[in-house]
Amino acid sequence: MILINGKKTSQLELSDRGFHYGDGLFETIEVINGHCVFLKLHLERLAQGCETLEIPFKSFDLLREEIKTLTHHQRHAVLKIIVTRGSGGRGYQQPTKINPTRVVLLYPFPDFPDVFKTEGIKLRFCANRLGLNPRLAGIKHLNRLDQVLARAEWHSADYQEGLMLDINNNVMEGTMSNLFIVKKNHLYTPKLNMCGIKGIIRQLVFLAAQDLGINLTETDLSKQQCLEADELFLTNSVINLWPVSQLVEKSYRPGAITQKIQRWLEDFKTQDLCQIS
Amino acid sequence: MILINGKKTSQLELSDRGFHYGDGLFETIEVINGHCVFLKLHLERLAQGCETLEIPFKSFDLLREEIKTLTHHQRHAVLKIIVTRGSGGRGYQQPTKINPTRVVLLYPFPDFPDVFKTEGIKLRFCANRLGLNPRLAGIKHLNRLDQVLARAEWHSADYQEGLMLDINNNVMEGTMSNLFIVKKNHLYTPKLNMCGIKGIIRQLVFLAAQDLGINLTETDLSKQQCLEADELFLTNSVINLWPVSQLVEKSYRPGAITQKIQRWLEDFKTQDLCQIS
Repeated sequence: MILINGKKTSQLELSDRGFHYGDGLFETIEVINGHCVFLKLHLERLAQGCETLEIPFKSFDLLREEIKTLTHHQRHAVLKIIVTRGSGGRGYQQPTKINPTRVVLLYPFPDFPDVFKTEGIKLRFCANRLGLNPRLAGIKHLNRLDQVLARAEWHSADYQEGLMLDINNNVMEGTMSNLFIVKKNHLYTPKLNMCGIKGIIRQLVFLAAQDLGINLTETDLSKQQCLEADELFLTNSVINLWPVSQLVEKSYRPGAITQKIQRWLEDFKTQDLCQIS
Repeated sequence: MILINGKKTSQLELSDRGFHYGDGLFETIEVINGHCVFLKLHLERLAQGCETLEIPFKSFDLLREEIKTLTHHQRHAVLKIIVTRGSGGRGYQQPTKINPTRVVLLYPFPDFPDVFKTEGIKLRFCANRLGLNPRLAGIKHLNRLDQVLARAEWHSADYQEGLMLDINNNVMEGTMSNLFIVKKNHLYTPKLNMCGIKGIIRQLVFLAAQDLGINLTETDLSKQQCLEADELFLTNSVINLWPVSQLVEKSYRPGAITQKIQRWLEDFKTQDLCQIS
């Protein structure tokens, strides 16, 4: 089921600027027993993204209602929210009156084997690079050709994710996830001030590290540093946390810090699930 | 009128990857008395863009027919072509079978005063920068947030266009046009190997310069070099060529080289119009 501006339909107005220019934002949220996990944080990030793109989206109450309509009977699903600058004429210039488009839609929850969470996944490096764009860095906008091209590099199910470097050879993130590495009991994650998406689970790992007394530093990371790490893990709102069991030729075991963070995230999610949404 | 995959409709399937990721390309073409100006060159650039994005679009014959259906009665209009990777599920990964979406639609031709062509236009610098992305540089893809944000910087009709710098402070192009400057009878235009769109008229200015024996160099250009230029002009497929009469505080007159190139382009367009399409 899809709701576009509250209406049940799978058809979008062709004049939508989301289609013409990628002029909008999205969020991807896990739904468990009718509860949208970390919804508040996702809507906060959406609001920040709207501010960055200067999209005057105010209908958060309507959006919340539509999300409820769509999700309240769902056992386990993925909710996608898209907000765009709405319809417009030809050209980059915005119409005088902007009516943002809001879309909520559901996808089946992907059928990941349990071992991805317990044993870890296999990771590769992608050849396609992330462009540099400080103004757009961090937010979850709709201009995603870099990720599309990187994800097209492998078809085999042997690899669950690919790491992307930026054009300066810094390792930045997975095509769909954020990266953390552990070296000598210290956590590191790429600074995402020139490109990349600041994920909600990434944000929670900062909270987890603080809570658990683990040092966490945002930094530049090289391929070599990833290969020499003691532990690696990936995060996003659908996978939550996947340890990395293999990167190129190098093997890893889910380490103590990865497991601590993973347990903390599970507990935090349980707390979120117990809240009345 | 709009045709989506040959069907008269203004409604797009929401699952289109053009909407979710900007996973596609576009072309903007002037239509005069049912003739699409420089159509062959536009379709060649579209094909190149598809190759860069690895979109397996082969339906150029169908596209040409649809363009004809849409434009053959039009006196003066703007044709927009959009090709995307078609519909897909959630996530960046492409479906096994890709059915690209083709869209053709018409807009009224903008009502520009004649003085823009004869006396020139007023130009400003934009604060918003172009990100760096060598793989995507040059092609006319749908990830256009940089241009959207730059074009949102001014609302007054006093300025007809804004120049965009990249994040390294090189002047690259207008929000919707390519830039040329003249200094001591030599033409310069920004190299577009890190960002920007290689326009069809830009491509023809290279041909014009060669034909007219004018030196033309692709180079890095600073704000200062633009301000100290003898002549400046902008090009795109809708405006063709606009001399610049003012940049910030500095005034210019349409110079000899600008006018030579402008006349050459007019003649070349007349030849194109006389061809049977």
